[in-house]
Amino acid sequence: MLLIDNIKEIYTGSSAEPSYTEGYILIDEDTITAVGSTESEEYLELQKDDRLSRYRADNLIALPGLINTHCHAGMSILRGYADDMELMSWLQDKIWPFEKRMDADDIYWGTMLAIAEMLRNGITTYHDMYFAVEQIARAVKETGIRAVIGLGLIEANDGEEGLRQTRDFINEYQNTAGGRITTNIAPHSPYTCSQEYLSSIIELTEELNSFIHIHLAETIQEVENMKAEAGRSPVAYLDEVGLFKVPVLAAHCVHLEQSEIALLAEKGVSVSHNPASNLKLGSGIAPISTMLDNGVNVSLGTDGAASNNSLDLIEDARMASYLQKGINYDPRRLSLKDVLQLATVNGARALLLEETGELKEGYQADIILADSSSSPHFHPDFNQLSNLFYAGNGKDVKTVFVAGKKLVEDNRLITIDLERVYHEVEKRAARLS
Amino acid sequence: MLLIDNIKEIYTGSSAEPSYTEGYILIDEDTITAVGSTESEEYLELQKDDRLSRYRADNLIALPGLINTHCHAGMSILRGYADDMELMSWLQDKIWPFEKRMDADDIYWGTMLAIAEMLRNGITTYHDMYFAVEQIARAVKETGIRAVIGLGLIEANDGEEGLRQTRDFINEYQNTAGGRITTNIAPHSPYTCSQEYLSSIIELTEELNSFIHIHLAETIQEVENMKAEAGRSPVAYLDEVGLFKVPVLAAHCVHLEQSEIALLAEKGVSVSHNPASNLKLGSGIAPISTMLDNGVNVSLGTDGAASNNSLDLIEDARMASYLQKGINYDPRRLSLKDVLQLATVNGARALLLEETGELKEGYQADIILADSSSSPHFHPDFNQLSNLFYAGNGKDVKTVFVAGKKLVEDNRLITIDLERVYHEVEKRAARLS
Repeated sequence: MLLIDNIKEIYTGSSAEPSYTEGYILIDEDTITAVGSTESEEYLELQKDDRLSRYRADNLIALPGLINTHCHAGMSILRGYADDMELMSWLQDKIWPFEKRMDADDIYWGTMLAIAEMLRNGITTYHDMYFAVEQIARAVKETGIRAVIGLGLIEANDGEEGLRQTRDFINEYQNTAGGRITTNIAPHSPYTCSQEYLSSIIELTEELNSFIHIHLAETIQEVENMKAEAGRSPVAYLDEVGLFKVPVLAAHCVHLEQSEIALLAEKGVSVSHNPASNLKLGSGIAPISTMLDNGVNVSLGTDGAASNNSLDLIEDARMASYLQKGINYDPRRLSLKDVLQLATVNGARALLLEETGELKEGYQADIILADSSSSPHFHPDFNQLSNLFYAGNGKDVKTVFVAGKKLVEDNRLITIDLERVYHEVEKRAARLS
Repeated sequence: MLLIDNIKEIYTGSSAEPSYTEGYILIDEDTITAVGSTESEEYLELQKDDRLSRYRADNLIALPGLINTHCHAGMSILRGYADDMELMSWLQDKIWPFEKRMDADDIYWGTMLAIAEMLRNGITTYHDMYFAVEQIARAVKETGIRAVIGLGLIEANDGEEGLRQTRDFINEYQNTAGGRITTNIAPHSPYTCSQEYLSSIIELTEELNSFIHIHLAETIQEVENMKAEAGRSPVAYLDEVGLFKVPVLAAHCVHLEQSEIALLAEKGVSVSHNPASNLKLGSGIAPISTMLDNGVNVSLGTDGAASNNSLDLIEDARMASYLQKGINYDPRRLSLKDVLQLATVNGARALLLEETGELKEGYQADIILADSSSSPHFHPDFNQLSNLFYAGNGKDVKTVFVAGKKLVEDNRLITIDLERVYHEVEKRAARLS
């Protein structure tokens, strides 16, 4: 049993107000068994238990670990390789040729770099769609992070073989690493998968009781091309194919009509909003304020580091909020409470991870502790959640627990040899470029 | 003489490519006397000079100090006091009543907090429009930062007395603190200053050979109200009054028509773009890509910490670039070169600070050194300027020189007692709220 105490403020995830000031969290193995105030009788009782290990969180605020619902972690090895380029020439001349040269080990080390960055920034769960999924699972297992992993499926490249690999991967990896690894099925997008291919994918999803991760309505071109070619929008296409019969997490959703937003809400489709990537690639700004008003479950994603270029969900959360204020000319939306929920509770719901995303009894002990005193941007002390999300960034997260295990302490990674990661990444990046 | 050497890469400010890899910068008092490669003969000669002090910048990249062209530093004491509120109730119910209770010492300590944050984030020059300007000058003088200071003038509050105070302040403070303090005249906005008042301000500006700092076209309401009341836009109003006869730095400029952009370019008006503040307050997104295309000198501002909420120009630079990519559906604009120039060269030009904003011989030694190796987001090493601006933030800046004096070393402030600042700010914030 581990007792984290002297926590300055505890934000459980459901409210923008601290649930406890001077609080404690009790952990048994991978699970939170109590959250409360250090002035409670329960806490006084705990003081007598000398079998407890203790972690003092002086001047730190506690939040649920952040949940990154859209990433291609291996792409961190492409960070800074090509910026400021028109989308298709960026992909065709730079990204795709580079990716073609990548082998499974390159993806492993790119993923290790991404996980190192995410953990240091307080991301305790992430969602990966990429290749060499066994290598991704290996990195997740070794580092201690939590992840939902799906093999990206492009019909022209992967076809039936991709479905077979997906089935094998899910059968072998679902609920492994003490439950930290879950899996799903990841058709790349409406425009790279035919109706027949998606039908097979839906069948497989139902058979394996899995769920789907797909890119959707990312660019105007995607929407216009599909309308020109098939007479309907990407959302209408997926609905027609019956994709929304199974649980779906759709990434981006930048270009939606009002009726499509209503449809996503009705069908229970979760959205991963990727504000930095959508801006940087020139895709636009997703109407997530309207989505939230319509009851869509909106979560947050970083996307890969080639198109962001950092994996910092606190920055993306701020950007999500500020963008909606700006484009709607309304500083009230998104509120700080929306921001917190996007990055925690809604992410857990989007990834079908019950018992994560909140700090409460019976939930997984995915906890981050952020420094709220040493940096100027945490002063004055009016509102530390505001200071973290509206003035701070991932570097303010000092200590990180996933499934009850301490993975970062005072910004230092415990399970990752960072120098080794840098060495491998630099060596491989030089070869691949 | 100080020699900074072993610099991994030197970005002089005019190019997105490093001008030197493995470089050195030589400083005499407050001035750069040489910038070059450590493989040059000049550098070998310097090795023989044992009177030089030495600063080794291993694994650090050098850039010109960042220039924040719009701030109300004292407002840092309001950070997090009120967020997510509709603009007028935010001002009327929260910000203005709080500010009314602030005395000169509160402004001094709020300014100290802001300067601490700015210096740690690599901002070496900032532009302040606020009250109690003598206290601001005191903070600037003590801390070693460079600043352009103007007393904010609202006709109804300040009137003729404000003009008198401005004249006295300029006469007493212009070019003091070894040239680190310069001054200007700061009418708050078109809608708070009458034609007569602005005429007096223009006269004073000409008489004192000064320049003007003004808020302009920040919100749709401002533009529409002025059109409804006076039949012309704020820009047209200022042009009619003759304000653009003197040098002007206009902050925000969110809502401009194409003809107004052309006018600002023609009249040589510089713009301070404040992307985070404009979003957070629900003002909108300024069309700076169009402004740059039209030849307007666009620089970057954080605005005050009540409306941003951090004073991190690297984050604002990234946001400026990503926003233009997103709203124009074009990932090519702004480029990394634009971003660097916005934050350095253009800022110097906007503040009429000759011989700052670039790293070159004869220029002021305002230099920042950023860590390009210890954090995951600086790997791989394809493009360190991209890693800094597109993945990093102010915390990556390790060491800061202003006018040749080292003010920050390894993130630690040398001229500021941070604990004292926190103590004073917390005490005062509690009293004022």
